[in-house]
Amino acid sequence: MSDVFRFDIAATDGAARTGAISMPRGTVRTPAFMPVGTAGTVKAMYLDQVRDLGADIILGNTYHLMLRPGAERVARLGGLHDLIRWPHPILTDSGGFQVMSLSGLRKLDEQGVTFQSHVDGSRHHMSPERSIEIQGLLGSDIQMQLDECVALPAKRSEVERAMDMSVRWAERCKTAFGDQPGKAMFGIVQGGDQPDLRVKSAEALKALDLKGYAVGGLAVGEPQDVMLAMLETTCPVLPSEKPRYLMGVGTPDDIIKSVARGIDMFDCVMPTRAGRHGLAFTRRGRINLRNARHAEDTRPLDEESACPASRDYSRAYLHHLVRANEALGGMLLTWNNLAYYQDLMRGIRQAIAEGRFADFMAETQDEWARGDIAPR
Amino acid sequence: MSDVFRFDIAATDGAARTGAISMPRGTVRTPAFMPVGTAGTVKAMYLDQVRDLGADIILGNTYHLMLRPGAERVARLGGLHDLIRWPHPILTDSGGFQVMSLSGLRKLDEQGVTFQSHVDGSRHHMSPERSIEIQGLLGSDIQMQLDECVALPAKRSEVERAMDMSVRWAERCKTAFGDQPGKAMFGIVQGGDQPDLRVKSAEALKALDLKGYAVGGLAVGEPQDVMLAMLETTCPVLPSEKPRYLMGVGTPDDIIKSVARGIDMFDCVMPTRAGRHGLAFTRRGRINLRNARHAEDTRPLDEESACPASRDYSRAYLHHLVRANEALGGMLLTWNNLAYYQDLMRGIRQAIAEGRFADFMAETQDEWARGDIAPR
Repeated sequence: MSDVFRFDIAATDGAARTGAISMPRGTVRTPAFMPVGTAGTVKAMYLDQVRDLGADIILGNTYHLMLRPGAERVARLGGLHDLIRWPHPILTDSGGFQVMSLSGLRKLDEQGVTFQSHVDGSRHHMSPERSIEIQGLLGSDIQMQLDECVALPAKRSEVERAMDMSVRWAERCKTAFGDQPGKAMFGIVQGGDQPDLRVKSAEALKALDLKGYAVGGLAVGEPQDVMLAMLETTCPVLPSEKPRYLMGVGTPDDIIKSVARGIDMFDCVMPTRAGRHGLAFTRRGRINLRNARHAEDTRPLDEESACPASRDYSRAYLHHLVRANEALGGMLLTWNNLAYYQDLMRGIRQAIAEGRFADFMAETQDEWARGDIAPR
Repeated sequence: MSDVFRFDIAATDGAARTGAISMPRGTVRTPAFMPVGTAGTVKAMYLDQVRDLGADIILGNTYHLMLRPGAERVARLGGLHDLIRWPHPILTDSGGFQVMSLSGLRKLDEQGVTFQSHVDGSRHHMSPERSIEIQGLLGSDIQMQLDECVALPAKRSEVERAMDMSVRWAERCKTAFGDQPGKAMFGIVQGGDQPDLRVKSAEALKALDLKGYAVGGLAVGEPQDVMLAMLETTCPVLPSEKPRYLMGVGTPDDIIKSVARGIDMFDCVMPTRAGRHGLAFTRRGRINLRNARHAEDTRPLDEESACPASRDYSRAYLHHLVRANEALGGMLLTWNNLAYYQDLMRGIRQAIAEGRFADFMAETQDEWARGDIAPR
C-alpha cells in the first residue's frame, strides 16, 4: 500500500460529496460515520462486528487512552491498532474536549491545560505538542489538533478568545506533527455561534494548508438550526478538496442535514450509548425498548435489516433484556444502532453518487416521521 | 425427530460414563456442562457463540423467569426456546433453590413456599405442582422437582426433615408432570452430608422410577471431600441406566472428580460469573487478569485454544478492559471460560470413550498444578 494520505471526491450533489479518504491502513468511504471506541473498545461490541457493519474507521479518545492504559504503554504494546485488533484506520481526538468535560481541577492557559485524572486523581499536563505526541504514540492515522471548545451559549469575547488560541494551537500542532506521509493532522474550526468568527477561524486554518478540517464546538447545547447555519457559513470557506469532519455529531437527522451542507465525516457516542440505555435507531425512527408496549411483541426491530440484532430477535426479548438489565440487551441494541448508522451512510453515499441525494433525504425523513410500526 | 427421551451409555471407564441423552430438540453428549442462562440469556454471550463452543443444552432459572418476563408471558411468546433463540434442549431448575437464596420473606411448609420477589416485592406461592406448571409454560425439556435444599453445615434433624419432604414433593411433581414422552422430570437427592440420608433419599426416588436423578444440596459450603464422599455414597444407589446430574457444580476440578464418581451432567455460574470479574479458566489453571503482571503481556490466554477470545486477544488488552470495567472484558473472558469448560468436557468424553480417563484426569490436574505460563 502506498504511503500517502489522500482524499478523492467521486461525485457531488449540491453541497454533498461522496468519495474516499485513502491511507496506508485502508480506505474510508465518505460520508463516513466513525463508531466511537472511547477506551480502546466500541462498547459492548466485538470489533469484527463493527467492521462487518461497514465501518472503515473508528475513533479513539486520547484523554481516556492516555490515562488508561497510557500512551507510552500503548506504544510499547505495538500501538493501538495491534492492542485492540483493529488494523484499519483510527482517528483520535486531541483529548482537549474530554479534559474539559470529564477531568477535575483544570487550569488552562496559552501553554496548554493542566488537569486531574477522573480515574485516579493523578495530575497531567497537555500542551498542543503533547497531544500530538500522545496521538503518535497511540499510532493514530488521523490526529486532531488540540483546541479549546466553549460550551454554548457563551459570551462572544470568550468564544473569540478560545477560537484565536485554537488557531495558534493548530499551528503548534502542525509543527509538532511534522511530515508524516501516510497520516494526517486535522485542524478544528471554532467560533461558537458567531458566523464571522467561524469564517475567521476557517480562513486562518485554511492558510495552514492542513490535510483535513474539522468543525468543532457544535452540538454542545445549541439548537439544530444554529448548528446548520454555522455549517453553511463555514464549509464554503474550507478548501473543497480536503475532508470535512463534524465532531461529535449526531442524530441521523443531524447527519443527513450536515452531509447536505458538505460534511464528509462524523463521530458520535449516540448509537452506542443509546443502545446501552434501551433505545433503538431504525428506519422508522427511535424505539424505546423499555416501553411496555413491546413486552409481547414477537416482531423484530426491522425485518428488512441485514443485521442479526435488528432482524432476528423479537422486541419482546429485547424488552425483557433491557428491563432485566442484561448485558445482551446493550450488546444487541448497540449492534442494531451501529448497523442502522452504517446503513444510513451507505444510502447517503449511494444517493450522492447517483445524483438523487435530495430525494433520498426526503424519503428517509418521511420514513422517520411515519414513526414505528404499530404494535400488533 | 422421534418423540422420546432416552439415555444411552456408549462407554464406561471405572465409574465414569460417556454417552448421550436424546430428546426431540437434540442430543446432549455426556458428561455435559450446561452453561447457565439465568434470565433467558447466558450473560454477556450471544447464544450462537455458546452453541459453537459445543454446548448441547443450557439451563434456565425458573425463579428468575417466573418473575421476569413471567411464565405465562413466556408461554404466550411461544416458549423460552423461541424467545431466546435457542432451539436446542433446555433444562430448568425448580426455582426452589433461588427462592431460598434470593427472595425475601419466605414461608415454607408442606404445601410449598410463599415468597416475595427480589425484583418488585410482589408475593408469590410456589408448590411442587406450580413449579412443574411453570417449567411446562417455559417449555423446558428437562424439568426438576421442587425440593428443599439446606445449607451446610446443618443439624441432622433439619437435613432429614427437608430430605423427607423433598421425596414427597418429588412424588407430587411426578404426578403433576404426568406423561410427556419427549421430556423428562428429574428427582433430586438430598440428605446433606449424612451418608445414610443420601442413601435413603436416593432409594426413595429410585422407587419413583424417574427419567433422571440429580444430586442436590452439595457445593453449598462443605469441603470438596465431603461432596465427593456423598457422590460415592449416592451414585451406586441410583439406577445406572439413568442420567445423573450434579447441581450447581463447579470448578473444573470438582467436575473431573465428580465424573470419576459417575456424574453425567453439570451446571454452574462459575465460568460466566468469574468471566465478568476478570478471572480466566485455562489449561494452566486460573488467571486473574486484574493482576498488574498482565499489563504489558502481549501473549494470549492460550495460543492453542480454538476460541478467538482465548487465542487472539492479548493479556495486556484483557487487563486493560477489566481494569477499565469495559463490557468487552466480560464478554471475552466469559467466552474464554465457557470455551475452556466445553473443551474440558470434550476431553473427558473422549478419554472415557478411549478407556484412559484416569490418565486424562492426572494429566489435566498436572497441567493445572504447573500454573500459568510465566510472564515474559
